[in-house]
Amino acid sequence: MQAAFFKLADIIPYNEAEDYMKKAVVKSYGKKGEKVVNMNFAAIDNAISGLVEIKYPESWATTTEGAAPVKPADNEYFKNIVFPILAQEGDSLPVSAFTPDGTVPTGTTQYEKRGVAVKIPQWIAENCIQCNQCSYVCPHATIRPFALDEKEAAEAPASTKLVQMKGKGCENYKFTVAVSPLDCMGCGLCVNVCPAKVKALKMVPQESQSEQQKAFDYAVANVTKKDIPFADTTVKGSQFNQPLLEFSGSCAGCAETSYARLITQLFGERMYISNATGCSSIWGGSAPSTPYTVNRDSGRGPAWANSLFEDNAEHGLGIYLGQKAIRDKLIGYIKQLNYEDADKKAAVEEFLATVDDGKKNGAAAKALIAVLEANADGELEKKILAEKDYLAKKSVWIFGGDGWAYDIGFGGLDHVIASGEDVNIMVFDTEVYSNTGGQASKASQMGQVAQFAAAGKAIGKKDLAQIAMSYGYVYVAQIAMGADMNQTIKTLVEAEAYPGPSIVIGYAPCEMHGVKGGMGNCQSEMKRAVEAGYWQMFRYNPSLKAEGKNPLIIDSKAPTGSYIDFIKSETRYSRLIQAFPERAEELFTKAEEQAKAKYDRLVKLGQIYE
Amino acid sequence: MQAAFFKLADIIPYNEAEDYMKKAVVKSYGKKGEKVVNMNFAAIDNAISGLVEIKYPESWATTTEGAAPVKPADNEYFKNIVFPILAQEGDSLPVSAFTPDGTVPTGTTQYEKRGVAVKIPQWIAENCIQCNQCSYVCPHATIRPFALDEKEAAEAPASTKLVQMKGKGCENYKFTVAVSPLDCMGCGLCVNVCPAKVKALKMVPQESQSEQQKAFDYAVANVTKKDIPFADTTVKGSQFNQPLLEFSGSCAGCAETSYARLITQLFGERMYISNATGCSSIWGGSAPSTPYTVNRDSGRGPAWANSLFEDNAEHGLGIYLGQKAIRDKLIGYIKQLNYEDADKKAAVEEFLATVDDGKKNGAAAKALIAVLEANADGELEKKILAEKDYLAKKSVWIFGGDGWAYDIGFGGLDHVIASGEDVNIMVFDTEVYSNTGGQASKASQMGQVAQFAAAGKAIGKKDLAQIAMSYGYVYVAQIAMGADMNQTIKTLVEAEAYPGPSIVIGYAPCEMHGVKGGMGNCQSEMKRAVEAGYWQMFRYNPSLKAEGKNPLIIDSKAPTGSYIDFIKSETRYSRLIQAFPERAEELFTKAEEQAKAKYDRLVKLGQIYE
Repeated sequence: MQAAFFKLADIIPYNEAEDYMKKAVVKSYGKKGEKVVNMNFAAIDNAISGLVEIKYPESWATTTEGAAPVKPADNEYFKNIVFPILAQEGDSLPVSAFTPDGTVPTGTTQYEKRGVAVKIPQWIAENCIQCNQCSYVCPHATIRPFALDEKEAAEAPASTKLVQMKGKGCENYKFTVAVSPLDCMGCGLCVNVCPAKVKALKMVPQESQSEQQKAFDYAVANVTKKDIPFADTTVKGSQFNQPLLEFSGSCAGCAETSYARLITQLFGERMYISNATGCSSIWGGSAPSTPYTVNRDSGRGPAWANSLFEDNAEHGLGIYLGQKAIRDKLIGYIKQLNYEDADKKAAVEEFLATVDDGKKNGAAAKALIAVLEANADGELEKKILAEKDYLAKKSVWIFGGDGWAYDIGFGGLDHVIASGEDVNIMVFDTEVYSNTGGQASKASQMGQVAQFAAAGKAIGKKDLAQIAMSYGYVYVAQIAMGADMNQTIKTLVEAEAYPGPSIVIGYAPCEMHGVKGGMGNCQSEMKRAVEAGYWQMFRYNPSLKAEGKNPLIIDSKAPTGSYIDFIKSETRYSRLIQAFPERAEELFTKAEEQAKAKYDRLVKLGQIYE
Repeated sequence: MQAAFFKLADIIPYNEAEDYMKKAVVKSYGKKGEKVVNMNFAAIDNAISGLVEIKYPESWATTTEGAAPVKPADNEYFKNIVFPILAQEGDSLPVSAFTPDGTVPTGTTQYEKRGVAVKIPQWIAENCIQCNQCSYVCPHATIRPFALDEKEAAEAPASTKLVQMKGKGCENYKFTVAVSPLDCMGCGLCVNVCPAKVKALKMVPQESQSEQQKAFDYAVANVTKKDIPFADTTVKGSQFNQPLLEFSGSCAGCAETSYARLITQLFGERMYISNATGCSSIWGGSAPSTPYTVNRDSGRGPAWANSLFEDNAEHGLGIYLGQKAIRDKLIGYIKQLNYEDADKKAAVEEFLATVDDGKKNGAAAKALIAVLEANADGELEKKILAEKDYLAKKSVWIFGGDGWAYDIGFGGLDHVIASGEDVNIMVFDTEVYSNTGGQASKASQMGQVAQFAAAGKAIGKKDLAQIAMSYGYVYVAQIAMGADMNQTIKTLVEAEAYPGPSIVIGYAPCEMHGVKGGMGNCQSEMKRAVEAGYWQMFRYNPSLKAEGKNPLIIDSKAPTGSYIDFIKSETRYSRLIQAFPERAEELFTKAEEQAKAKYDRLVKLGQIYE
């Protein structure tokens, strides 16, 4: 590249540039021997001899039209703000175009339709076992299962592929898996995780699937949620819930968004998110569009905010305490309601009985609001209705990466879990500062190559989970979606239900890791990591202690794979072998020993609690 | 007080004021019954009837002279800066009077001679068993043992009490315990800890002991350190080392300064201290004088600095890394020295052989410097001598209270221990923000009353030691001087010698605790705390792991005393019983259970490592 640059840019005579470059080669590689030096010389020479001029059409030089982004007709925010920015006319927007408090509507990535994937999945209906794992792992919510009733099936576009839905109680429904060709990033995770005997998905050229956009858009806009016997706390059932995080700008195959998307399917309609700076604040809120969205039926979805890198946990705690103060006041009013009518009384009692139950309290609040609105002249009713959005129990989440949780935001994270308050923390653990180019964090592992650890990190990974467990009243877990999909969803549900602080640390392979075969193997890489004893899965649930049970449940089996073989398959480790083979040997061996000791220690900790 | 104020200040007619105060009494105490209300009424009435006017001498109103502070003749800094400030003429000092970099000389509290104690200890030589425990616990270094040779004994002032020194190898020495009447704070700790059958110390009026100042000053200025068979890593032996923290402004009976003073006796001559904001930064560096001082013979003592509350650990790490970079460079030069002379060669080899041994490297550096100075024309010698102060291995300490270590500075503390670097952290754990009036910290215990925890802290104490142990390569210990003087000194020596990060958490009873009988019982209160299972003593030494031994040594026995009886004896807990008796019962019971569980867990953790 450097040779080509100097040849074309003509800053100094090329002969001189060549001379400088070749001297630099000798200086850098001289001690590696003549062969290496000659290979580098050849690279310089071949760059020049290989230069090919590509002529662009002459019309390009004089055109006045850019590529037009998709232009939706029916969204004012998109029309007035997003479209001008996407058209690179953001400078023309007056300050008055923006809201004074910095809030923006959610659900706007749906209008972007980037269409960046070369290949996207095609659903082969006849092979499908209807497990929904493709949707469960999809980082971008671009592949989704639907159950259609007779009418919906009849009205569906011709490109919609329908099969009989499997399972007792599903006899009246057709099943489809819809793919959004213009939103899919083409990572191929869905194909790779498909457990059907003969894969029910295959990657095909995007342009061959353009008719599928209609099928996807129809299903998303029209197909209702059905009363089917798959609990939405299961892998399969959860995927019939509308994802409230969609079409974000995260990398293809990103593990972080797979976790976050799932969380929105479980709790999104009553969710606040305080998001630390990092990848998750970029894919979570890249101006001008927002991937968090609202449920089509309820109109509710996550409220999302990003404060500073160093205060995200505290910011989330503040959100929690703020809404709690208002809600506690309203609960006080509700206790003063004195209805004689049995139905009204029942609505009040149901609300108060479920006040700490996030799952049930939403419906109870809805019913209570209906009662209050029918008595809207009452003083108490007026006061409660004025803040009715605070009535239903909320689910407060604090999102961030390892750079935040282990390092820069750790002081605050510790303070927040120590507080005992009912907040949920989700750590996307990529073991590196992914968003800023890959600096080592305290979550980086021994021997891992990263910025500030060019010779491989010499000390082990900080044990954030063990630190959190030291409080005894914090729900603490480590998960790895690709290693155990059931454990992941079970953990998230338990963490959210626990009436105190919860922290879930999710292993998140990342573009930065150099996973063999690319990020389409992200989920299987998690499985390999657990089998090799590189990552442990477990749940520490203080509620079990109160029931006289062992609070620590270890969900990982003892390692069966080779730790060193595993890490050698990722370039973040293998590059150390190239650069410093002896040090690599030493650090990798030590890292393997420590990983074994860590698992043993976990097992013994489990015995302590018994 | 309020009644007296309104009576004398005449801001509003007293009758009106009385009316307001009595209404306030009814409002505050009405629900506690007529008896309580009447007691409060009586307090107001008695305040007025009890007022007595005290006439001061008329001359006071016209005097132009203030009380003159002690005026030393021989210290420029004291004369030019300290004296004008103490004389309340600090405003007259020009900016140019101060150093541009903010450094000030140490060892200046010795000139203050506050003389605030009403009673001070008198040493009864014939009862003394020469254990030095009085000196070991003294917060202010105002009671010190000395071993005098024949000449020193002969030249000592007449008021010096001398006895034959006990112990093999001490036949030629006289022994004395010197007390500084004008520096002693009168806490009485020395008398209380004296283990002699008949106490060898008793509290007597200060003015009766004025002749003892001469004896103290003579010994401090003239008596040399003797080669006696008491290792300075023992309770007794350590006290023959000059304390390099003396006469600070800490409270009478302060536990923090007892720890800090001892640390300076062990490592003070090669010590850097980075001090967090809090009590220890106040008693450690109250302008205009400094209690840290230098050894009389070597001229060396702690270099002390105070950065921000939130960055003290990082600041200390920076100090460590800065001196290490310079020293590593010098070590590189030393390795290039190529002396043929056997003695010179031996000096170089001894230095390099002891380069990581703080105890031995000082003497080796001194010998090496002598060799270098004899060859001062050499290029390498010049370079090394230019920075010779960096040659000897230093001891870097990071001091702070629990408000810093558990709360505000915790993020940085965690980062520093995670770094693996060779720094030593001393936490003075008073379980409350002592310096700012007693706010609860994460170190405060369940049921403890503090600011922001007026109804007793509802959650337990953060387990900082367990968090630090999670790294596996950090030396971690909890100590309580009054519970085990030997364990305290053994721990400090081990922590300093450990070639990686060390954190020692010292239990520090505080004025704020309301200890029964006052802070003269500070040391025995630590003993009671350990016996009641309120505080645990242990050491986690990663070096033992490398030797195949169990790194966790539990120095506390299983509790024998009553946890609840112990906490009830301190007003920080007993006031909860008065304010909220039921809540006190509940929290105290839970706290006791948790303390037992904590000890059990510690024992089991010990078994894990075996």
